[in-house]
Amino acid sequence: MVTSTILSDLGTEILIPACALVGILFSLLQWFLVSKVSLSLDKPDAKHAFTESLIEEEEGVNDHNVVQKCAEIQNAISEGATSFLFTEYQYVGIFMIAFAVLIFVFLGSVEGFSTSYQQCTYDTTKMCKPALFTAVFSTVSFILGAITSVISGFLGMKIATYANARTTLEARKGVGKAFIVAFRSGAVMGFLLAANGLLVLYITINVFKIYYGDDWEGLFEAITGYGLGGSSMALFGRVGGGIYTKAADVGADLVGKVERNIPEDDPRNPAVIADNVGDNVGDIAGMGSDLFGSYAESSCAALVVASISSFGNNHDFTAMMYPLLISSVGILVCLITTLFATDIFEVKTVKEIEPSLKNQLIISTVLMTIGIALVSWIALPYSFTIFNFGVQKEVENWQLFLCVGVGLWAGLIIGFVTEYYTSNAYSPVKDVADSCRTGAATNVIFGLALGYKSVIIPIFAIAISIFVSFSFAAMYGIAVAALGMLSTIATGLAIDAYGPISDNAGGIAEMAGMSHRIRERTDALDAAGNTTAAIGKGFAIGSAALVSLALFGAFVSRAEITTVDVLTPKVFIGLLVGAMLPYWFSAMTMKSVGKAALSMVEEVRRQFNTIPGLMEGTAKPDYATCVKISTDASIKEMIPPGALVMLTPLIVGIFFGVETLSGVLAGSLVSGVQIAISASNTGGAWDNAKKYIEV
Amino acid sequence: MVTSTILSDLGTEILIPACALVGILFSLLQWFLVSKVSLSLDKPDAKHAFTESLIEEEEGVNDHNVVQKCAEIQNAISEGATSFLFTEYQYVGIFMIAFAVLIFVFLGSVEGFSTSYQQCTYDTTKMCKPALFTAVFSTVSFILGAITSVISGFLGMKIATYANARTTLEARKGVGKAFIVAFRSGAVMGFLLAANGLLVLYITINVFKIYYGDDWEGLFEAITGYGLGGSSMALFGRVGGGIYTKAADVGADLVGKVERNIPEDDPRNPAVIADNVGDNVGDIAGMGSDLFGSYAESSCAALVVASISSFGNNHDFTAMMYPLLISSVGILVCLITTLFATDIFEVKTVKEIEPSLKNQLIISTVLMTIGIALVSWIALPYSFTIFNFGVQKEVENWQLFLCVGVGLWAGLIIGFVTEYYTSNAYSPVKDVADSCRTGAATNVIFGLALGYKSVIIPIFAIAISIFVSFSFAAMYGIAVAALGMLSTIATGLAIDAYGPISDNAGGIAEMAGMSHRIRERTDALDAAGNTTAAIGKGFAIGSAALVSLALFGAFVSRAEITTVDVLTPKVFIGLLVGAMLPYWFSAMTMKSVGKAALSMVEEVRRQFNTIPGLMEGTAKPDYATCVKISTDASIKEMIPPGALVMLTPLIVGIFFGVETLSGVLAGSLVSGVQIAISASNTGGAWDNAKKYIEV
Repeated sequence: MVTSTILSDLGTEILIPACALVGILFSLLQWFLVSKVSLSLDKPDAKHAFTESLIEEEEGVNDHNVVQKCAEIQNAISEGATSFLFTEYQYVGIFMIAFAVLIFVFLGSVEGFSTSYQQCTYDTTKMCKPALFTAVFSTVSFILGAITSVISGFLGMKIATYANARTTLEARKGVGKAFIVAFRSGAVMGFLLAANGLLVLYITINVFKIYYGDDWEGLFEAITGYGLGGSSMALFGRVGGGIYTKAADVGADLVGKVERNIPEDDPRNPAVIADNVGDNVGDIAGMGSDLFGSYAESSCAALVVASISSFGNNHDFTAMMYPLLISSVGILVCLITTLFATDIFEVKTVKEIEPSLKNQLIISTVLMTIGIALVSWIALPYSFTIFNFGVQKEVENWQLFLCVGVGLWAGLIIGFVTEYYTSNAYSPVKDVADSCRTGAATNVIFGLALGYKSVIIPIFAIAISIFVSFSFAAMYGIAVAALGMLSTIATGLAIDAYGPISDNAGGIAEMAGMSHRIRERTDALDAAGNTTAAIGKGFAIGSAALVSLALFGAFVSRAEITTVDVLTPKVFIGLLVGAMLPYWFSAMTMKSVGKAALSMVEEVRRQFNTIPGLMEGTAKPDYATCVKISTDASIKEMIPPGALVMLTPLIVGIFFGVETLSGVLAGSLVSGVQIAISASNTGGAWDNAKKYIEV
Repeated sequence: MVTSTILSDLGTEILIPACALVGILFSLLQWFLVSKVSLSLDKPDAKHAFTESLIEEEEGVNDHNVVQKCAEIQNAISEGATSFLFTEYQYVGIFMIAFAVLIFVFLGSVEGFSTSYQQCTYDTTKMCKPALFTAVFSTVSFILGAITSVISGFLGMKIATYANARTTLEARKGVGKAFIVAFRSGAVMGFLLAANGLLVLYITINVFKIYYGDDWEGLFEAITGYGLGGSSMALFGRVGGGIYTKAADVGADLVGKVERNIPEDDPRNPAVIADNVGDNVGDIAGMGSDLFGSYAESSCAALVVASISSFGNNHDFTAMMYPLLISSVGILVCLITTLFATDIFEVKTVKEIEPSLKNQLIISTVLMTIGIALVSWIALPYSFTIFNFGVQKEVENWQLFLCVGVGLWAGLIIGFVTEYYTSNAYSPVKDVADSCRTGAATNVIFGLALGYKSVIIPIFAIAISIFVSFSFAAMYGIAVAALGMLSTIATGLAIDAYGPISDNAGGIAEMAGMSHRIRERTDALDAAGNTTAAIGKGFAIGSAALVSLALFGAFVSRAEITTVDVLTPKVFIGLLVGAMLPYWFSAMTMKSVGKAALSMVEEVRRQFNTIPGLMEGTAKPDYATCVKISTDASIKEMIPPGALVMLTPLIVGIFFGVETLSGVLAGSLVSGVQIAISASNTGGAWDNAKKYIEV
C-alpha cells in the first residue's frame, strides 16, 4: 500500500489557513466595494453619483431626501434585526450552556470522571487520553461551534442590512448596478462564513493537538463537538428566524395588500419593518447558521471516521485534512467564480439576472470538479483503508474523488431542478399562476402538487450520491459527498443571501417613496432572489440529508450496531415513528407561524382602525409593537420544536434502546427530506407566481 | 403441544357461511325498511306519511311535486354514477385482464409450464401440485377478487343512490327519521360487503380445496390472488373516483358558491349533478372497493402465513380458518351494534347524531373484544407455531387474542383522534374556522398544521399494534391485527357510507327547492358525515398500513431475505426513494384534480355566461357536459398513478434486486401513512370548518 502523499504535511499546514485568509481578504474587498455606495451626501463618491443619470433626477424627486430616508429605514431594519438576534441568542445561550453541561457530564461520567489513561477504543494496542479530558475538549469545541454559528448568522445579518439600502440607491442607476451591489454583499457573507468556519475548525484542531499529540482517536472525537454546536445553534436560528419572518410576512400582506389594498412594503403598513427585519433574521442569519451547521457536521463526520481509518492509524496528517483541503480549494474556486459575475460578464438587463446566477452554479461546479481531482491526487495516498462498521475497507484515491464529485454534481442537479420548479421563467410556476384565475383553492392544489413533484429528481440525485459514495467509501464517502455538495458554499451563500438583500432593497424603495421604476428593478432582482433562496434551501436540505446519514453511520458505529434490520419490530416501529417526527415538527412550527400571524393581523388592523391619518400617510404607524409580536412569538415558540429534535434521540435511546433509535433516525431522515424539499419549493413557487402575476 | 381445538371442523364449515348469510339477510332487512319510504305517491305508505307532520305542509309547499322532483334528481344521480362506473370498469377491466395474463404467465413459467408434481417449498418431504395449475387457480382467484371488489363498489353506489332521496324526504319528518334512513342504508352496504367478501372467499377456498386436497401450501398460495385482485381494483376505484368527485366538487363550488354566490347544490349550477355523482362513485364505490381490498389482503396474508405454520402442517382446518372466523363473528357483533343506533336508542336532535355514531364505534369495539376472545379460545389450539422468516415461532392462543385485539383497539383510537381533529365540535376545527377571519392564507396554514398534528397519535397506535403483534406472532400477528382493525368493517362501512348519503340528501333537498329547514337538517347529518368519512379513511389507512407490512413480510419470506439492513446502500436508497413515491403519486393525482377542476370551472362559467336565463332559473343547465368532463378526466388520469404503483415493484425488483425493493416498500409504507392521515384529516377539517362557518 502506497501511503505517502504528494502534498507534505507542512504544505497542508500552510495551504489551509492561507486559503481561509484569502477568502477573508476577498470578502473584505467586496465589502469595501459595496461601501463605496454612500448613504450620506457629504462624501465625494456621492457627488460622483450625481454625474450618472438617475431616474430620480429625471422625475424631479429630491435626491437628498431619498438618500436620507433610505439610510433611516436601513437603520431601523438593522436595529430591529440586531435587537431580535440579541434576544434570541440570550435565550438560546442559556439552553446551549445547559446542553454543554449535559455533554460534559454525560461524556465525563463514561469512565466515572477518571483522569487516568485508558485503552483506545479502536486501536486497542495504544493508550488514549482520559475520558474526562475528552469531555472537557468536546464541551469546548461544542461551545466554539455554537459561537462560530452565531458569528456566521450575525455577521451575515449585519452585511445584509448594510447592503440593502445601498442596493436600492444603486437601482437608480440601473438594474445591473443594483445587481452587482446585492451580489457583492452576498459574496461578503459567503466568503466570510466559509473562510471563518474553516479557520476556526483548523485552529481548534491544531490547538487540541498540542494536548492530544498522537491520540488522534481522542482528538477528533473531541472535535465532533464543533459540528454539534454549530447545528444545534442552526436549529434554533432557523426555527426562531423562520417563525419571525413568516409571521411578519403573512401578517403584513394579509392586512396591507389584501384588505387595505396598499402595495407591499408600503410605509403605512405597521408590520413593514418587522417584515423586512424578518428577511434578515430568518433568511440571512438563520440560513447562514444552517449552512455553517451542515458544513461543520460533514467535516467533523469525515474527520472522526478518518481518525479510525488508515489516515488516523498511520498519522497521515495531510490525508486526515482531506475534508478541510477540499473546503480550502472550494474558497479559491468560488473566488474565481465570483469574478465571472462581478467583473467578467456584466448584467445589464433584467433578463440577464437569472442566467448570471445560474452560471455561478455551473462555473463553480465545473471548476470545483477540477479542484477536487487535484486535492484527491495530491493529498491522498493512492490506496488506503476506511473504517466501515467494524471492518476496514480498501479504498483508492480516485474513488474518493468520485465520492466528493457525485455530491458536488448532485448539488448542481438539485439547484437546477429547484430553479425549474420555482422560477417564473418556466411552466410549473406559470401553471400555478394560471390556476389563480379560478381562485385560491386551485392555486393551493397546484402549488402543493408542484412541491410534491419537485421532490422526484432531487431524491434520485441524493440516492445516487448515497449509493456511489457509500459503495466506495462507506460512511466516510457519504460525509465527503456532503462536503462536496457544500464545497462551493461561498458561491451558494452569495447567491442565497442575494435574495433577501434584494427583497429588502425593494422594501426600502417602497418605504422611501421612490419611483415605481426603481421598484420594478428591485422586484426583478427579488424574483430571481426567490429562486436562489429556494436553491440555497435545496443545497441545505440535500447536504443535510447526506450529513445526517453520515452522522447516523457514526452513531451506529459507536453504538456497535452492525445491522439495522427493518424486519425486527423494534426497528420497524422506529422507522414509522421517525417518519412521523417531521410532521410533528412542522405542525408545531406552522401552528406557531399561524398564531403569530393572527396576532400580527389583529395588531395591524387595530392600528389602521385607531390611528387617525394612517391610511392617508399623515400619521406614522407603531412599527415597534409589530416587531415585538414577531420577536415574542418566535422566542417563545422555537423552544418546543427545538426540544422535540434534541430530546427525541435521548428519550428514545434511553427508554427503547439503540435499535429503535436507529430506526427513528433513519425514518425521520427519509421522511424529512421529502417534506423539506416539497415545502421549500411550493413556497418558492407561490412567491414567484405572485411576482409573475403582479408584473 | 395441545393441537386440538374446541370448535370442530364441521362447526367451522357451518359457522362461517351461516354468519355470512345472517349478514346478508340483515342487510336485506335494512334495505326493506329503507324501501318503505316511498318515492311515488301511489303507495299506501306514502299516504301514511301524510298523516305525520311535515314541514312542507306547514309551509304550504306542494308535496306531490317535491316527491316527484326528488325521484327525478335521484334518477339523474344514479344514472350518472352507473354510467361512470361502467365506463371505469370497462377501462380497468382491460387492464385487469392484461394483468391476469401477466400473473398467469409469470407464475406458470416458474417451472416452465410443467404439469408434473414437484417438491413443496416449505415441507420438502411432501409433493405439491404443479406450478402451472397453481398459476391457473391464482389467476382465477385474482379475477374473483377483482369482481368481488367491483360488486362491492357497485352495490354500495346503488344502495346509496337508492337512499339519498329517501333521506331527503324523511328529513321532512325530523332529523331523527332522516338519520335512521341514512344510517340504515349505510348498514345495507356495510353488511352486504362484509358478508359478501367473506362468503366469496370461503366458497373459493372450499372449491379450490377439491383440487388441492392436502396441498395447503399450494391452496393458500393460489388464494392470495383474491387479495391482489381486490386491492388492484381498489386502487383504480379510489383514484378514478377520487379524481371524479374532487374535480366536480371544486369546479361546482368555485363558480357557484364563490363567484355566483348561489348556495351549494343549487340546481342552477351546471356541475351540481356531477358533484353529487362524485360522492357516490368516489366516497361510496371507491371506499367500498378500498376497504374490501384491505380486508381481502389481510385475510389472504394471514392464510398464506398460516398455511406454512403448524396450522397448515397439521391440517388443522378450524385454526386455519381463524381469520375468517374473526370476520364471521365480526358480522354478528356489528349486527347487535347496529340495533343500538336503529332501535335501542333513538336520535331525536341534531346534537345526538355525532354521539350516536361514536357509540357505534365504542360498542362494536367492546363487543368485538369479547368476540375475539371467544374465537381465540374455541378455534385455536392452546399452543402452536407460526412461521417467522424461515424459523417456526412458538405462539399461544391468548397471544393471538392480543394481536387481533390490539389492532381492533388501535382502530378505535384512530377513530377517536380522527373525530377530534375533524369534527366541528372540538377546538382544532374551530381554530381552523377562526383562522379564516384573516383570509385563505392563515386557513391553509392552520389546516395543514392540523393534518400534520393529527398524525402523531395514530402513528403511535399503529406502532404499538405492530410491536405487540409482531413480537407475539411475527407477520401472522400483523395480518390478524389488520383483520382485527377491520373486524368491525360492517359498522365502519355503515357510518362511513352514511356520510355521502347525507351529503347527497342535502344536495337533493336544495335541487328540489325544498325549505331551508330541510337543508339545515341534512347539513347537520352531513357535518357528522364528514367526520365519519374521515374516520372511515382513518380505518382504511391504518389497516392498509398493517396489511402492507404483513404483505411486505410475506414478500420478504418468499424472496428468502432474512434481514433488510438499513446500513447497506441498496436498502437505504430504496428507503429514500420509497419514501418519495407517495409524493410522486400525490403530485399526479392532485395535478389531475387541479386540471380537471380548471376545465370544470371554465365549462360552468361558459354555461352561466352563454345560457340565457340560467341564473334566473328559467333555463336548465347542461348537466351532461360537466359529468362528461369529470368522467373523461378521471378515466384518463387514473392510469399514470395506477401504473406507478403497480409497475414500481416490478421495475425495481427486476433492475435493482429484491434488497432495494424491500427498502422501497418499507420506505413508501412509512412515508405514505403519514401523508395519507394528514391529508385525509386536513380535508375533513376544512370541510367541517366550512360547515361550522356556514351554520
